[in-house]
Amino acid sequence: VRLAVLGNGGFGTAMAIAARRIGHDVTVWGHDPGYTAEIQASRRNPRYLPAGIEVPPGIEFTADPHRALAGAAIVLVAVPTQNLRAAVGGLVVALPAGVPLVSLAKGLEQQSGLRPSQVLQELCPGHPVLALSGPSHAEEVARGLPALVVLAGAGPEERRALQQALSDQHLRVYRNDDLLGVELCGALKNVMAVAAGIAEGLGLGDNAKAAILSRGLVEMMRFGQAEGAKPETVWGLAGVGDLAVTAFSQHGRNRAFGVAIGEGRTLEQVLAATPKVAEGVWTSRVVRRRAEELGIEMPLCEAVCRVLFEGLPPGRAVRELMERDRKREME
Amino acid sequence: VRLAVLGNGGFGTAMAIAARRIGHDVTVWGHDPGYTAEIQASRRNPRYLPAGIEVPPGIEFTADPHRALAGAAIVLVAVPTQNLRAAVGGLVVALPAGVPLVSLAKGLEQQSGLRPSQVLQELCPGHPVLALSGPSHAEEVARGLPALVVLAGAGPEERRALQQALSDQHLRVYRNDDLLGVELCGALKNVMAVAAGIAEGLGLGDNAKAAILSRGLVEMMRFGQAEGAKPETVWGLAGVGDLAVTAFSQHGRNRAFGVAIGEGRTLEQVLAATPKVAEGVWTSRVVRRRAEELGIEMPLCEAVCRVLFEGLPPGRAVRELMERDRKREME
Repeated sequence: VRLAVLGNGGFGTAMAIAARRIGHDVTVWGHDPGYTAEIQASRRNPRYLPAGIEVPPGIEFTADPHRALAGAAIVLVAVPTQNLRAAVGGLVVALPAGVPLVSLAKGLEQQSGLRPSQVLQELCPGHPVLALSGPSHAEEVARGLPALVVLAGAGPEERRALQQALSDQHLRVYRNDDLLGVELCGALKNVMAVAAGIAEGLGLGDNAKAAILSRGLVEMMRFGQAEGAKPETVWGLAGVGDLAVTAFSQHGRNRAFGVAIGEGRTLEQVLAATPKVAEGVWTSRVVRRRAEELGIEMPLCEAVCRVLFEGLPPGRAVRELMERDRKREME
Repeated sequence: VRLAVLGNGGFGTAMAIAARRIGHDVTVWGHDPGYTAEIQASRRNPRYLPAGIEVPPGIEFTADPHRALAGAAIVLVAVPTQNLRAAVGGLVVALPAGVPLVSLAKGLEQQSGLRPSQVLQELCPGHPVLALSGPSHAEEVARGLPALVVLAGAGPEERRALQQALSDQHLRVYRNDDLLGVELCGALKNVMAVAAGIAEGLGLGDNAKAAILSRGLVEMMRFGQAEGAKPETVWGLAGVGDLAVTAFSQHGRNRAFGVAIGEGRTLEQVLAATPKVAEGVWTSRVVRRRAEELGIEMPLCEAVCRVLFEGLPPGRAVRELMERDRKREME
């Protein structure tokens, strides 16, 4: 079928390559006409993917929304959460009626606190909206290495149809009926990955990182339960699977962002150094605010916010976390 | 206090160094008189720890059980599960009456299927038996990098006293009242780490490894619930925390064992190449047998067994796992 990807970042491009491998006709929309023309001509995406990854024939890059979306039967929305409203707002006129939208973003909108699928639903009433998540680093997906992901949202029929359309022997899509949980996991794991990166930047080692992962998962569970997500989702590919790869893999950009902070750079310095968006940075503030409203404790998330936005030295943040009372693990 | 460590492997030595840092008088028993004398003289443990790690003064290495155990108020048992019965059986006569035993092993005994604490309880009636577990790679513990671990077993008073005795600002001990769950997690995570290593050895990437971690955690949960463990334990430091570090960290010996298998070496070749024991290898068979008795599915554990002991090619094992029906994630 015809499949459009909105966004020419690393994961958008990787999913375009995966969809082409499955046999779809793929167009990728990007907001920057100069850069989309460069990718289209060079068959490389050097800003967001390693040089060795080639974009195969049968994928067209364009900055023209009508050209990108005409005749599309599936639209993958690969725009970072904080840019979603502005980017998709300008594309709505070009969307074919009723085409399903699959969000790939992993964050929460700063102003509204909304999940990406909620933003899309607001902007595009009448379209089924889904979210695809799970451990799926762009570079590996582009190379055709195996990845297991989950697809949530819309109704069971649409999920099943999209599962079929997006799966092959490399990328395996599992259905999940907990859209809320899948999106919250995606957003929260990025915050925890920043925390893990900060610990790494401080030179604290893998035991400390594993402790952060395990504590972070408890915070994710607590937040998810308070919002009504299913515990099984937090355990699954979208939760612990994605958290582990984001926190430990060398590919993880939220982790890498945290490493730079842990090594002593400021938020402004790290933001200026890369075009890649670390969604966890902005999402940490939304989660902290919402956790306060819900009356739940999120010490790791709070520490990330204070380090990023309030000048708390990373080393002191870690000491404070370590110095919480010795108690029974689950109290 | 006087603290004895039974076993001079990597983790036993690391815990001796941690206990010495806390201020205890430490003796370490090893079964090999030549090698204990070598450590005692050189203040290095080259078989099991990197060359840069020095054993500080105030820790004595000996092969004499009476010398090691005389006056000990705490005994840490750092012997691999499959050697536990033979090693501790010979030391029982030297144990001070009623001294608490803290097991550090992470496996299940092949013949009996018993957990390490059950083996110790059988051998040493009248002694409180506990287990310490969680993400705690020896090298990092020895270096004084932060680690959060859990302590389970015995009664609440003994747990609290031992928590105090073993914690400082580097090594933080949390109490957990689910000894069964803590020990099952330690045993099972090693099996899953072998699986993750096999995938790595095959060159499958971090997304695949994260998928294995997430699926492995579901198997751990299923097994734990069938045996009566608490779900919170599987989520916690002893479960997901330890699994993540074992599967992703470069220190993980079960992971490294799996990598060698994934690269095409045989079980016999890998066993011959290192003195370090990968507990997951032997434990996989116990878990598979028990899972059959319990009537629960453990496809990852089964695949590990078939690859290690029945000649199933690792690549085919992974393909079989990937080709299971596409279905809802949690079905």
